[in-house]
Order: sequence, then structure tokens, then C-alpha cells
Amino acid sequence: MKKVLNKPENFVDEMMEGIIAAYGDRVGLLDGDKRILVSKYPVKDDKVGIVTAGGSGHLPVFLGYVGDGLLDGCAVGNVFASPSAQKMADMIKACDRGRGVLCLYGNYGGDNMNFDMACEMVEMEDDIETMTVRVKDDVASAPKENKDKRRGVAGMVYAFKVAGAAAKEGRDLKGVAAAAQKALDNIRTMGVALSPCIVPEVGKPTFSIEENEIEIGMGIHGEPGIEVREMMTADDIADLLLEKILDDMPVNKGDRVSVMVNGLGATPKEELLIVYRRLAQVLTEKGVELVMPHIGEYATSMEMAGLSVTVMLLDEELEKLMRAPATSPFYTNENI
Amino acid sequence: MKKVLNKPENFVDEMMEGIIAAYGDRVGLLDGDKRILVSKYPVKDDKVGIVTAGGSGHLPVFLGYVGDGLLDGCAVGNVFASPSAQKMADMIKACDRGRGVLCLYGNYGGDNMNFDMACEMVEMEDDIETMTVRVKDDVASAPKENKDKRRGVAGMVYAFKVAGAAAKEGRDLKGVAAAAQKALDNIRTMGVALSPCIVPEVGKPTFSIEENEIEIGMGIHGEPGIEVREMMTADDIADLLLEKILDDMPVNKGDRVSVMVNGLGATPKEELLIVYRRLAQVLTEKGVELVMPHIGEYATSMEMAGLSVTVMLLDEELEKLMRAPATSPFYTNENI
Repeated sequence: MKKVLNKPENFVDEMMEGIIAAYGDRVGLLDGDKRILVSKYPVKDDKVGIVTAGGSGHLPVFLGYVGDGLLDGCAVGNVFASPSAQKMADMIKACDRGRGVLCLYGNYGGDNMNFDMACEMVEMEDDIETMTVRVKDDVASAPKENKDKRRGVAGMVYAFKVAGAAAKEGRDLKGVAAAAQKALDNIRTMGVALSPCIVPEVGKPTFSIEENEIEIGMGIHGEPGIEVREMMTADDIADLLLEKILDDMPVNKGDRVSVMVNGLGATPKEELLIVYRRLAQVLTEKGVELVMPHIGEYATSMEMAGLSVTVMLLDEELEKLMRAPATSPFYTNENI
Repeated sequence: MKKVLNKPENFVDEMMEGIIAAYGDRVGLLDGDKRILVSKYPVKDDKVGIVTAGGSGHLPVFLGYVGDGLLDGCAVGNVFASPSAQKMADMIKACDRGRGVLCLYGNYGGDNMNFDMACEMVEMEDDIETMTVRVKDDVASAPKENKDKRRGVAGMVYAFKVAGAAAKEGRDLKGVAAAAQKALDNIRTMGVALSPCIVPEVGKPTFSIEENEIEIGMGIHGEPGIEVREMMTADDIADLLLEKILDDMPVNKGDRVSVMVNGLGATPKEELLIVYRRLAQVLTEKGVELVMPHIGEYATSMEMAGLSVTVMLLDEELEKLMRAPATSPFYTNENI
């Protein structure tokens, strides 16, 4: 196993130590807990809290979006594993300022169960109001009829951005949850994988794929996709992903969209740009205007090769929330 | 070959089309030339110009640093190949505002030769004053006695930042060149490679390395390093790279440094953070203060796995120039 680490069992703790060593002036561990990161950016003392949680191994998701105009806190588990309900409850408590906390996270079994328990705990024990919005943007993970079963992938970054801006504006818990949900109703993602990744504690690839193959619709933990095909050109990949996304969420002439081409870990930025170029060609031909491009690694799977495409359909409100300044050690829209 | 591209011979042109599709409001092609990118950010009309050039395949180096408080222009060649002297001369002309142009680039044979020719051309034909500063930060590429032979790697990003800030401040050509050279005198880099990358036009890996091996000091084009060893832990890698860097450029108690842990392409951010954590431990024990961490992909080799460590020793002037706001589609220090 060729990974840059020490003992595999210390991977997550040491990664957190790295975050604190580098960015400890802006984010911190909750009571020294190496699985809970909270924001130190100054905020208004009645801001609604926003938290997320999930497995490690997806940086900048999830920890990287704890910041100003973004998330207040994030709990992480081991690589690709949900943190416990207790950690989530501790985090929710720390991020409540009396106006409640939005739990905004990907739609995965473990995260759902643990967040539900955590919300019950803080409601009963601490009288904290919570609301839940689950990210279900991956169109490949279930057909439209079953869209509530879809997994959450890179589109969650846009939802974090929108919810964070809504909370910073001073909206109440219902208003922040509504903004996040509205964003997600207008976000779709689909990806392809070219190579697997290695979970440190496991020490071997998560799945196997032939040298001339590409897996369409694979999940960010190696969940099976729709089909395995012979390797395709960049333009064919872009066309296929965009077609599936637009089948699910049509766009029309005059619409404005933000498109994310997200690298899963090992795919060079040059290749992401080639894909963006094609998406821009096709969308521009349809009379759709592209704004606020997100091209880079926003939600990864360690060193997996591949990429995902996310389309966010904007209206005036969503565009304003997307454009509001936001910053964290891993994200800023200052140059987007 | 599993790369996301169309025809290999169109790789660079299509990557440039992607940059323009995404960021055409801020950077543009010079007269439509898909190998020359120039800044569209507003600048004072007597600012000294700063340009660079080099092979493609290293994003964000080189194109990504064309921006505000950074570079005015960049010419690129094919993957890992220098652009022609003519392209460089065209770019220099476009970036001159009457106060001369600094050519700031990595110390590679092709780039040196072509830039020397380009500078002669613009001086003779257009009476443009130029100065040259070559980046030679890679301590593994030649011993101290032969440091003029060293290659330029990720440390060039710090040099771009410092020179860009000096030019934006209104310094003259000599002053901007002096700032760049002073930065480079205080910058050292060394890297390790874990896997090769594939040059699209070639279609096969640049070198081979065994599954349990690591190459110490490898260059960003696959130039041979100092030695091949059995795979090491993250802490051992950090210690080795830091030791070699500090052997060459000692630091003392009370010094302030900016440390870059640069991913070469396929190495996850989690692993870069684990390395940063160790570097911070060792430097902090020495009484050295770390500021402005740069952890991520700043200078890559396509999908090569591995990383480099850069240490920049700061004084008041360099820290001020590093902290001056700078932004491009690929870089901002707003959140650093």
C-alpha cells in the first residue's frame, strides 16, 4: 500500500492534527476531540447553526467547509465511516446559539440513523431545536421515481454555500433549511470512476476496474454505478453526464447555471478543464449562461481517479446566496 | 491509457479552451493564440510586467498564476515541453507597459534558451527592457556547490507571489527582479514521487517505480532523484525532506517561515496534512513560527503521486509581499 501515512489507525487523528497545525487560528477541535471541528470565525451571536458529518477521506468535504458563511461544525468518522450519534450531539450543542441548528448532510444509512439519534438527544436533553436536510444529488444512485433514495455527493458543497449565506443573513432555522432545500431541488450530480482508492485501515483497493474501462455513476465510496463501459473520450463523458443530469432537471434558454467539475482525487486539473469546456459548449448552444465555475477538487475519494459533474440551476435568490462572500481554509469564493 | 481527453494532440488547446470557457472574464488568449494567456485584471498603466513560461501539465503552474498581484502573462508549450521563443517574445511585448518586463521561470534548458532568444528579440526589435530571474529551488537536483544548476519546482509559486506584489506596489523593473531574487534566495524545495504520470502525446508512464518504493528528490518531469528507497512513513518523509532543506538553508529560533506541502497530482489532501503536521511539530520544536500555510496542489505533474515540501524563510519585507492580496482563477491568498 503506497500511501503517505504513519499507522493506518492514526490516519484520521493525524489528518485532524494537520488541520489544527495549519489552520488552528480559524477552526478548532471541540474540547480537544479529534473528530469534531468547529468554526472560530466570528459570527453574530444569534446566527442559526449549520452542521454536517460523515466519513473521512473526502477532503475538502466535509471538514473543509467549516468556515465563515459556511458551516459551524463538522463531525467525522473513520475513512468512509459515519461518526457516532454522541459526537454529532456534542457538535450540535456546541453550534447552537439559541436559534436552532440545521443538520445538512449526505443521504447515507449510517449518517441518517446517527443524526436522527443525535437530534433526539439534543432536543430531549438540551431543548435544542434542529431541522434536517439530506443531500440527494446523485442522479445515478436511484431513478427519478425513487429520488429519495439517492446518495449525496459533490452537490452538497453548493448546499453548504447557500445555507451558510442564508444563516449569515440572519434567517431563522426554517428559512435556512428552506434555502438549503431549495438549492438541492435545483442541483444534480453524476460522476464516473476510472480507478479505485485505498482505505488506509483496509489497505487494499475498494473495487477493481480494468485498464480500458470506466464506471458510469459510481458512488464516492465505490458504490456500484449504472454500468461499466469501455473508456470514453472527454467529450463523450461530458455529454453523457450532462444528458443524464438534464434528463432529470431540464434547463431552458435564458437559464443561468453554476457548473462544478469535481475531481475525485487523482484526475489532473487539465482534464477537468477539458470536460468543463465541452459542458460550456453544449450549455451555451442551448442558450444557457454559465456563471461561478467550480473546477477542482471539492469532494474527493482519497486518490480515486475520475470526476463528477454538478449542475445548479440558479434563480435570483440562489445566485445572491451563492455570491455572498464565504471563506474557510479549504474554500473561498473570492476568486470564483 | 486512462486519461480524460479527446485526441492527445489537442490536449493543450482544449485545456486552454476550458480556461477561457470558465475564466474568460479575467484571463484571455493573446490574439486568439491558444498557447499564450494574458491577464485581464485591471492594473496601473505603468506597472512592470511579469511573465513566465514552461511546459503544460503542471496546473496550476504556470497558467494558473496569471492574475491580479501575480503574473501578467504566461506562454505554454506541449505537455512538459517549452514554448517557442517567438511565443515568449509575443507575450513579453503584450505585457510591457513601458517600464520593462521580468521573465521569471524555472531553470530548464529549453526555457532558458528560448527566453534568452525572446529577450534579445524584444530588446532589438521593440526596445523593451527585460530582466531574467530563474527559479532554482529544488535542492535535490544539484549539490550546494552547483546550485546554479538546480531545477525550478513548486517554490516558484512563492516567487510569483512576491514579484507580483512588488510590481503592484509600483517598484521598477530592477526592484521587482530584486524582490523575486530575494524570495528565491530564501526558498528551498524537495519532493518525493510514488508513481509516474502519463504524457498524453506519449501514452505511457514517464518512468517506473515498484509498488513498495519511493523516489527521493524526483523532478516534476520524472527527472531522476537522489535515490530510490523502500516506502517510508509520512513522518520519515517529512523529516527527510525537511532535513535536506534545512541543511541547505538553516533556520533559527525566532524565524518565521511559510511552508508549502504541494501535492504532485494524485496524493490526497489528507496525506498532505499529515505531512504538514509533522513539519510543524519539528519546526515548532526549533522555535520557528509557521505562517501562511500552503497545503494543496500548487505545482503538479499531471496524475503523479507524491509531494514536495517548500520552506520560505521570511523577513519583514517578504512577509509583507506575501500577505499583499493576490488573486487569479487558480490561486488566492484570501483564505491563506
